[in-house]
Amino acid sequence: MRKIDVCLSPELIHLYDVPSLAVVVVDIFRATSCMVTAFAHGAKEIIPVEKMDLCSAYGAKGYLTSAERNGVTPAGFDFDNSPFSYQVDKVKGAKICVTTTNGTVAIRKSRKSPALYVGAFLNISRVAEALKKWEGDALIVCAGWKGKPNLEDTLFAGALIDLLHGSYHVADDAAMMALGTYKEASANLMQAVKGSSHVNRLLGLGIEKDISFCLERDVYPVLPGLRGNKLVLK
Amino acid sequence: MRKIDVCLSPELIHLYDVPSLAVVVVDIFRATSCMVTAFAHGAKEIIPVEKMDLCSAYGAKGYLTSAERNGVTPAGFDFDNSPFSYQVDKVKGAKICVTTTNGTVAIRKSRKSPALYVGAFLNISRVAEALKKWEGDALIVCAGWKGKPNLEDTLFAGALIDLLHGSYHVADDAAMMALGTYKEASANLMQAVKGSSHVNRLLGLGIEKDISFCLERDVYPVLPGLRGNKLVLK
Repeated sequence: MRKIDVCLSPELIHLYDVPSLAVVVVDIFRATSCMVTAFAHGAKEIIPVEKMDLCSAYGAKGYLTSAERNGVTPAGFDFDNSPFSYQVDKVKGAKICVTTTNGTVAIRKSRKSPALYVGAFLNISRVAEALKKWEGDALIVCAGWKGKPNLEDTLFAGALIDLLHGSYHVADDAAMMALGTYKEASANLMQAVKGSSHVNRLLGLGIEKDISFCLERDVYPVLPGLRGNKLVLK
Repeated sequence: MRKIDVCLSPELIHLYDVPSLAVVVVDIFRATSCMVTAFAHGAKEIIPVEKMDLCSAYGAKGYLTSAERNGVTPAGFDFDNSPFSYQVDKVKGAKICVTTTNGTVAIRKSRKSPALYVGAFLNISRVAEALKKWEGDALIVCAGWKGKPNLEDTLFAGALIDLLHGSYHVADDAAMMALGTYKEASANLMQAVKGSSHVNRLLGLGIEKDISFCLERDVYPVLPGLRGNKLVLK
């Protein structure tokens, strides 16, 4: 049976043979939740970049821009890092350039995958369907927080593995731990994440509404994936 | 309150401020379980090194030697990586040089800690006592398997955090996940680890007896710690 594993931090990505794997990149709070929301509202493409000045340069070329550092948005960008900011008309048909603290790093480090998808609870069943069709092994890459593993991305990894039961084999310890962490918390994810360091950091920014929304499942049955340097709908 | 965190792999150690932290290094299967067993049987000092030829060079200087790579022991060394091999008379008063796949790497990467201890289930309460006396924050460094997090070291981290309830605060996600993983599995650790990749690797080597022994708690109330480049009893 095909195997699914979890990379708990982008800092560990060199330990995995990315060019042979389907990869799901996840940054629940909030980069990949925002990307899924943007595509569901008609975005045409999203270019993830790591540097803010490059993001601004895309802005000068007609892209809408989105930036986040340490949970907040610097001045001069069109979107902040809230999924609600993408639920607006101007997203329809837009090309957007995005830079975030963790999520865009995770995408860059996974870019050699032949099938890179963007996952969130908001589109989790759609991602599971795609992996069921993929004929090789798969890896879930958690964006984490500045290199450290985080709870919410690990919970997503466990939830996705749970959906793939019967299609993929769990053979590695990180995947086992993610699945166990999810099963323990699945009855009330909000309760589970409220103790986490990143959520406390975000709650300090007054975005409890975002947290709650990013934990909802299958709101948007869209599948963003990487083509070249761009995310597009698959 | 003091804070305790978990570094799930030596590959993430640069994300932690080791010089300010008490560090517990753990490699349950089997390096730190062996070290604790050796000290309980009278070893005078253990020098952890990363290269086999350096280990052999210590042998030429009168040290007993122990080596392990990928779970097995190359020819020409005095001990293999089983705790049972240290339960012998020649260990008493001995100076031993040890090299292993993961554990000695984790010790080297943690050596700037002002208080580095060697932990295993075999001495877990003794380690918890030492951390209760330490007046700063603490970090548990899991040796993992070739850079990847593993289940048994994470379970130890969770068990140690559980013993420190009321003395240390759990503020970070990796520590929360380790504690959750342990609580889920605590009723039957052997059952929990039997699915893990590393244990399957070891069971393939025919050492179920080692696995079982390394999960026993408080068999040896000793506290090995680093002084200079040597592990000694604290």
